[in-house]
Amino acid sequence: MRVKVHITLKDGVLDPQGRAISRSLHSMDFRSVQEVRQGKYIELELDETSIIQARKHVTEMCKQLLANLVIENYSIEIDGE
Amino acid sequence: MRVKVHITLKDGVLDPQGRAISRSLHSMDFRSVQEVRQGKYIELELDETSIIQARKHVTEMCKQLLANLVIENYSIEIDGE
Repeated sequence: MRVKVHITLKDGVLDPQGRAISRSLHSMDFRSVQEVRQGKYIELELDETSIIQARKHVTEMCKQLLANLVIENYSIEIDGE
Repeated sequence: MRVKVHITLKDGVLDPQGRAISRSLHSMDFRSVQEVRQGKYIELELDETSIIQARKHVTEMCKQLLANLVIENYSIEIDGE
């Protein structure tokens, strides 16, 4: 079962990588860029048959390892859900 | 206009970050994990009115800066498209 996880910085948390990208794009003449935020995208292949179990396990993975809940949000998408 | 970009490693390209996550999850007893691939997720806020122009510009941004086309793929999603 394929699971897609997005880890993004919470609103208000400074994003130096996003700002660096934004500045580079401006210096390359992409003037329509107003804001850039960079996050992580993680694809997991799981040996699970139950979507409910898969979501439960991936939620635990996010809480325990993948996301830093102080500054990051996570969202989980499961194929076929 | 909000644009979402996913940058992922091409198939066959070694993903040390993904492997590190996979090993950590196994050591934490998440035994159903078979494979993990880590990519980047970039959200852009653009001052554009035309979706066609926005896609054209973001495609150029991916080619020129955001993705390393030798080892990475990119995909672009535009809200309202």
